[in-house]
Amino acid sequence: MNSVLMAFVSLNIVPRDDCNSQCAGFCLRFTGENNRYVFRSRTRAFPRRRSGCSALRGLRSQSASPAPASASPASGPSAKKGVVARDKVNVAVIGAGRIGQVHAENIAFRLRRANLCGVASGTRELAERCSLAAGCKPYFDYHQLLDDPNVDAVCICSASTQHTRQMIEAAQAGKHIFVEKPIDIDLGRIDEALTAVRKAGVKLQVGFNRRFDTNYMRVRKAIETGEIGETHIFHIVSRDPEPPPAHYSATSGGIWMDCAIHDFDMARFLIGNEVDEVFAYGAVRISPEIAQYGDVDTSVVMLKFRNRTIGTIDNSRSAVYGYDQRCEVFGSAGSISINNSYPNTAIVSTAHHIQRDLPMHFFMERYTDSFIREMDAFCSSLLDGTPIQCTGFDGRAPVVIAMAARQSYQTGMPVKISEVDRPLPPELHDWDGQ
Amino acid sequence: MNSVLMAFVSLNIVPRDDCNSQCAGFCLRFTGENNRYVFRSRTRAFPRRRSGCSALRGLRSQSASPAPASASPASGPSAKKGVVARDKVNVAVIGAGRIGQVHAENIAFRLRRANLCGVASGTRELAERCSLAAGCKPYFDYHQLLDDPNVDAVCICSASTQHTRQMIEAAQAGKHIFVEKPIDIDLGRIDEALTAVRKAGVKLQVGFNRRFDTNYMRVRKAIETGEIGETHIFHIVSRDPEPPPAHYSATSGGIWMDCAIHDFDMARFLIGNEVDEVFAYGAVRISPEIAQYGDVDTSVVMLKFRNRTIGTIDNSRSAVYGYDQRCEVFGSAGSISINNSYPNTAIVSTAHHIQRDLPMHFFMERYTDSFIREMDAFCSSLLDGTPIQCTGFDGRAPVVIAMAARQSYQTGMPVKISEVDRPLPPELHDWDGQ
Amino acid sequence: MNSVLMAFVSLNIVPRDDCNSQCAGFCLRFTGENNRYVFRSRTRAFPRRRSGCSALRGLRSQSASPAPASASPASGPSAKKGVVARDKVNVAVIGAGRIGQVHAENIAFRLRRANLCGVASGTRELAERCSLAAGCKPYFDYHQLLDDPNVDAVCICSASTQHTRQMIEAAQAGKHIFVEKPIDIDLGRIDEALTAVRKAGVKLQVGFNRRFDTNYMRVRKAIETGEIGETHIFHIVSRDPEPPPAHYSATSGGIWMDCAIHDFDMARFLIGNEVDEVFAYGAVRISPEIAQYGDVDTSVVMLKFRNRTIGTIDNSRSAVYGYDQRCEVFGSAGSISINNSYPNTAIVSTAHHIQRDLPMHFFMERYTDSFIREMDAFCSSLLDGTPIQCTGFDGRAPVVIAMAARQSYQTGMPVKISEVDRPLPPELHDWDGQ
Amino acid sequence: MNSVLMAFVSLNIVPRDDCNSQCAGFCLRFTGENNRYVFRSRTRAFPRRRSGCSALRGLRSQSASPAPASASPASGPSAKKGVVARDKVNVAVIGAGRIGQVHAENIAFRLRRANLCGVASGTRELAERCSLAAGCKPYFDYHQLLDDPNVDAVCICSASTQHTRQMIEAAQAGKHIFVEKPIDIDLGRIDEALTAVRKAGVKLQVGFNRRFDTNYMRVRKAIETGEIGETHIFHIVSRDPEPPPAHYSATSGGIWMDCAIHDFDMARFLIGNEVDEVFAYGAVRISPEIAQYGDVDTSVVMLKFRNRTIGTIDNSRSAVYGYDQRCEVFGSAGSISINNSYPNTAIVSTAHHIQRDLPMHFFMERYTDSFIREMDAFCSSLLDGTPIQCTGFDGRAPVVIAMAARQSYQTGMPVKISEVDRPLPPELHDWDGQ
Repeated sequence: MNSVLMAFVSLNIVPRDDCNSQCAGFCLRFTGENNRYVFRSRTRAFPRRRSGCSALRGLRSQSASPAPASASPASGPSAKKGVVARDKVNVAVIGAGRIGQVHAENIAFRLRRANLCGVASGTRELAERCSLAAGCKPYFDYHQLLDDPNVDAVCICSASTQHTRQMIEAAQAGKHIFVEKPIDIDLGRIDEALTAVRKAGVKLQVGFNRRFDTNYMRVRKAIETGEIGETHIFHIVSRDPEPPPAHYSATSGGIWMDCAIHDFDMARFLIGNEVDEVFAYGAVRISPEIAQYGDVDTSVVMLKFRNRTIGTIDNSRSAVYGYDQRCEVFGSAGSISINNSYPNTAIVSTAHHIQRDLPMHFFMERYTDSFIREMDAFCSSLLDGTPIQCTGFDGRAPVVIAMAARQSYQTGMPVKISEVDRPLPPELHDWDGQ
Repeated sequence: MNSVLMAFVSLNIVPRDDCNSQCAGFCLRFTGENNRYVFRSRTRAFPRRRSGCSALRGLRSQSASPAPASASPASGPSAKKGVVARDKVNVAVIGAGRIGQVHAENIAFRLRRANLCGVASGTRELAERCSLAAGCKPYFDYHQLLDDPNVDAVCICSASTQHTRQMIEAAQAGKHIFVEKPIDIDLGRIDEALTAVRKAGVKLQVGFNRRFDTNYMRVRKAIETGEIGETHIFHIVSRDPEPPPAHYSATSGGIWMDCAIHDFDMARFLIGNEVDEVFAYGAVRISPEIAQYGDVDTSVVMLKFRNRTIGTIDNSRSAVYGYDQRCEVFGSAGSISINNSYPNTAIVSTAHHIQRDLPMHFFMERYTDSFIREMDAFCSSLLDGTPIQCTGFDGRAPVVIAMAARQSYQTGMPVKISEVDRPLPPELHDWDGQ
Repeated sequence: MNSVLMAFVSLNIVPRDDCNSQCAGFCLRFTGENNRYVFRSRTRAFPRRRSGCSALRGLRSQSASPAPASASPASGPSAKKGVVARDKVNVAVIGAGRIGQVHAENIAFRLRRANLCGVASGTRELAERCSLAAGCKPYFDYHQLLDDPNVDAVCICSASTQHTRQMIEAAQAGKHIFVEKPIDIDLGRIDEALTAVRKAGVKLQVGFNRRFDTNYMRVRKAIETGEIGETHIFHIVSRDPEPPPAHYSATSGGIWMDCAIHDFDMARFLIGNEVDEVFAYGAVRISPEIAQYGDVDTSVVMLKFRNRTIGTIDNSRSAVYGYDQRCEVFGSAGSISINNSYPNTAIVSTAHHIQRDLPMHFFMERYTDSFIREMDAFCSSLLDGTPIQCTGFDGRAPVVIAMAARQSYQTGMPVKISEVDRPLPPELHDWDGQ
Repeated sequence: MNSVLMAFVSLNIVPRDDCNSQCAGFCLRFTGENNRYVFRSRTRAFPRRRSGCSALRGLRSQSASPAPASASPASGPSAKKGVVARDKVNVAVIGAGRIGQVHAENIAFRLRRANLCGVASGTRELAERCSLAAGCKPYFDYHQLLDDPNVDAVCICSASTQHTRQMIEAAQAGKHIFVEKPIDIDLGRIDEALTAVRKAGVKLQVGFNRRFDTNYMRVRKAIETGEIGETHIFHIVSRDPEPPPAHYSATSGGIWMDCAIHDFDMARFLIGNEVDEVFAYGAVRISPEIAQYGDVDTSVVMLKFRNRTIGTIDNSRSAVYGYDQRCEVFGSAGSISINNSYPNTAIVSTAHHIQRDLPMHFFMERYTDSFIREMDAFCSSLLDGTPIQCTGFDGRAPVVIAMAARQSYQTGMPVKISEVDRPLPPELHDWDGQ
């Protein structure tokens, strides 16, 4: 590892602060009484010189890690010690759908400190195809992977309804866990899974990948460093290029649980605070058939944070021009906003318009790098002992917000988070998710 | 290979034309008399649906190939047959400096259809460090790699002065060749090397990586498809963030041979035509010490193409805000321009300014993806028989332009390309570099 | 007038549609029962060739008029006949504060078809200074102007509390009326004034100048012409550069009545529909002293329109970077957004940032042209009989929305417009404000 | 005047430095021997607080004056004394074509400190139409205006061939002179006219209006204040939306004299230095018929300044997307670039493109404000004694550059300015144009 770092330094690259900010993570500590969370910032001082964002990504697991232990003032050599005593983490992927394939391929081809042990899927064809693509062995029963002592960690990419059961089994098997969002749409099951994780002492990271996108990282940095002062107002835009099939609404938990949940996480991540109240408007404007499931395809949700920051999230299932992912945070000392990402910077001027090509079409293109970065951070947590960037509590909170948004839409009234949340099990009270 | 493609298709990604244009390559055929080149466009009709630019890059060697043989109307199944009969190309890297490391790591970790056989460098420490980083064996004498029958191709990244000798040796050993720019700064040696390549019947690609940058590819596409009509005027901006050490001027061949050579290639690539005349102004504004070598650090070169397109290239060794790589091409039906690439899209509004972070600092960050894409294209040429995107002639022509620019600066007069070029050896007359 | 038009045509300017859209006005017709408004669009087909936005503004009263009667398919020659039978309208300004001075100077120096008869203010010094600046006679009692038979119209720019009384007096004196926003903050007084206007048969235009800003006009055009399909979501940002004195909150009616009222009008203008329900969050983040008046300085208001469009308006009293006036409307066929206006287009790249100067500081700079354009439209209505672009009903509706926003903030509950509105007097039932 | 200023101050506008930079003028002093010019900067320290760019333009003749005498540290009360002892300058316009109409209307309706005395044109219809539009008396022989003792100044907008004769007559009649560019295309006649002006002691300003455009003013300010360090490279883009009739080439002096002359002036204005050498490429790409006149419609000119700044100007007669007026200046401490001006800021996202409307179509729209500002500066020079912002020498120098460009194109060789210039008459040697 040192030699890699050395090699990197010797390349005479002149890295810069502004080019790549570390992921300004924070996590919450639950203090027991009153259902109260306390945020504990995990941000370190930004190292003086950091490398370019995309150059040599695969190479620099350590230096590119969002919160390198070596930069942590509080951590001595022993703190760097991770829970996996290898050079590389052996990861098995459970679930071979779209997101499972992304993770499998990243682990196989992009991450220097991870080995792909296998891909498991009950759908034989998927397991085989994904394994072939990633150059590993297919499994048709993930229990085989849980039983394999070589497997250090699992990456759970199955259907949401299977997450908690698999988490519990993996925890009991002593495997560290990376789980896709949402953990579940039922708070009871989520808390049961978190309890199992806690008891087993394994690490858990939740797949809110946008926290690892350089654009949102830059916004978080601006807020954390005080660049825009105290936060007053925010606005998050999150629109998909095309709606999923109507029947998807039957099981997805609806637009707030399935789609806006990323934005609820993003609001918490950016503002660095907890939501107090939610108010939601929704409408069926695109796919009339989803009305039968009580779902909507157009939504604006208003959030009031405990620190008095107020803001809105607007979602649509159909932005004809492509994936629309932007936000603005406005504060006492200024404002920061991010724009969409484009496949090129070309501007074409014709006799009719000044135009550019459409933005990246969907999350596979837009968030490619963030998927790599989140898995790299997970590996760093396991190998180097760096803090988990997106804990089980970070996975739980947006689910509660989504429940509140749905209830607000249904009742037409604002809903306090405390109205829909359930008390944490005692086992989780003194745990901060690390 | 089919299974990979299948896997890709099954991912339900909805790829789009505008997101990723294929590399609109062209190459020149030398017709013998009068030192005359004829361009032969290699562009195929753009396939209807292409994938997002960056998603799953490593996975799609075939589909991401800039000029997939399968899209070629003229090529039957046999034409698809490459010169390397394996699933993957075995590549050895010669030279372990900055660019050698980039290629070694890309071959090792980013390219699905290439194996890294070894890295050779006379500088023991470099060879070891680079090999360690890329996970391969170090060599201290590249002849060992040339003697190895497992090696299909070499990637020559040594000092420019060694290029032609190594090319000749590699050709004689039957190895296909990827060589960094410039091939050499002496036309005689270049022609000697090309002749050796031609005789040996090996493939040769020259490392003008910017041809594989999505921004420039988009400009080329606009010109090739007639989106902006006939080209009238172009302007290329190419400024480095900081000057090299002064003594670098002693051996580099000067700003036009070392730095602007990329832009001379770019002008040919974009306009799709050959330069007729050159006029250059230069000045020493940044590093007074380079004057002793006859070099300049600030330059504007004017080019007149045979098709009457006129334009300018401006170069500086010190753009304090970072690597400045832009261009505009203006034509009868409009204009296309590209901007710099930035690490994020954030706009910060403060009480003083509306501002964004600096652009990507230097070529390692800015052109990361293009280095991968050019090596992928080289592998496709060897495995699938797709045309070489940047031939030996494409490597030779910018050297002549650089010579003309230097002479123009020295004499204060415009210089015709024909004044500085030398006749091609007869062996190359009927060869188009493929 | 014809000769002016001729002169214009002879200038060989090639005007274009996209350069200057006509003001896509609409107004509402109250149908009596159920407090129901019906929108009647006033938009004409866009004339094929229109002039550049700013060139020769003063000259082209007729052609620049947002809704030229000549383009109206429904109006014959007689419909063009205005209510003032002169070449120019004689206008008197009542109130010599900031906005009174703007109108006085525009009438005096920018509008070819208006004469400034005098400026009246009870504050002797203001009346004198403003009159001197505008080159007209000062009046210390506006009744003198109402008694003057030469005065065709009054422009009421006094304190909001005086508007309705002066409107009634002016109507009774047979003067046409341009009144600044808000008409009043009491619905009863507003309706009394509208009734007087209606009875007197004079014309009334309300000063929502942003309807005449080329940016918002362009958004309205996109919606009206179907360029972005059906409207689904909108977001309006409207932030002042610095807060007014705290005591201003005592009489202004608060942030929704004083500041957001422009945005409530803008939402109606852009969406072309009526608001059904309002929900508001507010916070005191900038000026703690205003809390005593029940006012806030930071607000996000959510609006639900009858046509199911939902959206938000965010307001702040202190955007340190300057006046922040933007909006986005998202629809089934795309999206349109406008940005701030800047004093120049310069981008400066330094070793620290890529930056531009701050936007126009406040409404005087940003909306300069819209003040001229709205008064020009008023003159056209009087001289040519073109429809009033912003009627008394358009002035009344945002007041009701502001009342609802305030009540929502106070109760923490969403508020239906029908909960706070009062029935229109019978005299207004069959009037559409024209 | 004071009261106007007072009124302005009392408006509580908070003006800012960055919003409106004063015109950073400079002028040259000819020192006799060696054909050598010396620049004398006229720039004053930027006043701490300046007003918004466009608000209340007409009102603030004094404060908006680019170089207010009152800000000059060197000038006492007497220096403020202008040459016209009135409150307003009485101006007569000679020539009623396109540009004559612009000036006539601005003097009549936009400038508070100018009266329009009359418009003269030998073309009776033009004189009448323009006078009618501007509300003044038509003249069919401009000598009547020269004989009128009420006329303080003339604005010469006739055909270029008539400029010098009219200048000489006006000077002899004691009238101050504003003359459109180019003064003439013959250096002998120019020098004769300048000599007459000098002898008569009248003021002379040349109509290079772009110096008064806020965008170029901002670039000049960046250079003058050292914001981008020493200038190294510049690039000016100046393209017309459509070509003039071919026969225009017969008399216009060609693209460099007629069109690029603005850019030659701009290069001098921005760089603040004198051109040493010129090299030009030209091509006939748009209007084949102009070849017979030796003219071109596509041109790139390279300039070398005495201070070693090098740069290019690219011109085209046909930019199908509209008037393209941009520039970039690159220096040791950074870079500044300006973009085109647009009728609105709207961005429309559709299923096909992200697009905006075309830029302002031509100079009438783009440079509207600069025409007002230059005439306002002229009036200030006459009334307040502020320096002339664009002197006779500033009018002469671009003509010499245009001659050099043409000769370079014709010979294919670079041309020194000293090769084409002619010695100044002795009468002008010790004059700096003020």
